[in-house]
Amino acid sequence: MQIDRLTRAIRERGNPSALGLDTRIEYVPESLAKGCPSAPDAVYAFNSALLEGLREIVPCVKVQSAYYELMGPGGMSCMARTIDEARRMGYVVIVDAKRGDIGATASAYSGAFLAPDAPFRGDFLTVNPYLGYDGVEPFVYDCKGTGAGIFVLVKTSNPSSGEFQDLLAADGRPFYDHVADKVSQWGEDLIGDEGYSAVAAVVGATYPKQGAELRARMPHTFFLLPGYGAQGASARDLAGCFDKKGGGAIVAASRSIICAHQKNKNADFVSAARREALRMKEELSEVLRGR
Amino acid sequence: MQIDRLTRAIRERGNPSALGLDTRIEYVPESLAKGCPSAPDAVYAFNSALLEGLREIVPCVKVQSAYYELMGPGGMSCMARTIDEARRMGYVVIVDAKRGDIGATASAYSGAFLAPDAPFRGDFLTVNPYLGYDGVEPFVYDCKGTGAGIFVLVKTSNPSSGEFQDLLAADGRPFYDHVADKVSQWGEDLIGDEGYSAVAAVVGATYPKQGAELRARMPHTFFLLPGYGAQGASARDLAGCFDKKGGGAIVAASRSIICAHQKNKNADFVSAARREALRMKEELSEVLRGR
Repeated sequence: MQIDRLTRAIRERGNPSALGLDTRIEYVPESLAKGCPSAPDAVYAFNSALLEGLREIVPCVKVQSAYYELMGPGGMSCMARTIDEARRMGYVVIVDAKRGDIGATASAYSGAFLAPDAPFRGDFLTVNPYLGYDGVEPFVYDCKGTGAGIFVLVKTSNPSSGEFQDLLAADGRPFYDHVADKVSQWGEDLIGDEGYSAVAAVVGATYPKQGAELRARMPHTFFLLPGYGAQGASARDLAGCFDKKGGGAIVAASRSIICAHQKNKNADFVSAARREALRMKEELSEVLRGR
Repeated sequence: MQIDRLTRAIRERGNPSALGLDTRIEYVPESLAKGCPSAPDAVYAFNSALLEGLREIVPCVKVQSAYYELMGPGGMSCMARTIDEARRMGYVVIVDAKRGDIGATASAYSGAFLAPDAPFRGDFLTVNPYLGYDGVEPFVYDCKGTGAGIFVLVKTSNPSSGEFQDLLAADGRPFYDHVADKVSQWGEDLIGDEGYSAVAAVVGATYPKQGAELRARMPHTFFLLPGYGAQGASARDLAGCFDKKGGGAIVAASRSIICAHQKNKNADFVSAARREALRMKEELSEVLRGR
């Protein structure tokens, strides 16, 4: 199961972080871009170099679909190539596409992102729960068949995530708590050897109190924690989202790593990204050790 | 504004229905597919023939992104070509992709689907509200700039839509009602000459009672009504989702139209689709007249 592989890869690297390839063409250094025939080719060259440079440091890659869709069909081809290259190098790959639709359509999405012959095949896919279980079940079905996993949005990292997610239900609990209970339930019979389920959750690192409460509430649910770095969450903020052994979660960081070279014009982008990834690893380790 | 154009196009055709191009390669007759170099080319040929055959009958096309993503980058190219062809023929085009993400990423999605230079540029895009307003605002921003519109998921047509959407909030009202209020509010300053806002809503035709309540609650919100035909809703079920003049909503139908030829092996697919589209138009007219 990919959820076990993810847990082990994090342990081996001693680094619970995911490299977010939310790559815009503007991030690619001019010297690299000018040698490429198209924007998607330049983004692919940039991604490949980062993947190669960070493979000993980071266990997991998160590819944000939106930035590839923005470049059209050529961008989608770039995304497929990036995913394939990352898997070939041994990274665990999360495709962050936040898909969600009615059953028949969710099956098509699962066929696009999780099925054995999927054109954009990730080890994990992010999924939006708003449509309820029949919109999630086709993904769970493929997870059962292939060992893949999903991260279901529970509490997101953005400033207005509370607008609906924090709305109190009649029982006095916020809406996201109800989603959390269902996510735990959906994953009950997909718990791997390492104690976590293939049905995992997205929990924003920007909401430390809610994250810690959810950690206690969902003992078998692995967390993807966006919001670190550019979105404002610090390592200290997300310590409570990890279990007692320092496992059960992974922190996604994109701009802070892939745009690190923009802060120091003399550094090549791979070295700058490596330095930032190592700094982040150290910061996370310190906080997790110090609890 | 596209919302005014949609209202007028429906009135001119006397037909509040949208052709759902949720095209799977399995739907394409073998005789057509065998002449095409690839599956996406076959789907495009099928879509084009339907667009050409139905242009006098149906005012609007809904393209479901999932079925194109399933075919990989070539499928995305097929989607782009289908959208362009439909717009060129004068259809109002809804891209049904149900996107939703944090602000920066939602901007990239809007750049992919709504911006002037978007590679998959629709007149409307469907949007998932789970992340709250900062995940919706980038789409609204592009709507203001280009005259495009969005359909925000309020109450979806699938069997388990109630799992979260019908959950009662502390004030005794279901969750989707709170989403409905926000959708009305987000669209307040984007109301066109025909009385409807560019910020529109998806309301499942399979839930007639809720649909009628939402119609009363959201007087300036145009509704996209999925669930007719293959999903089980009848014309009578959705009558309450229209306003007193028989406007303010459009009914999406896909499989019932584009797979009509599979029920009658002797009919060519365009004729079969025309016949079903005309039958649906007649059924909707009768129900709307008879209220």
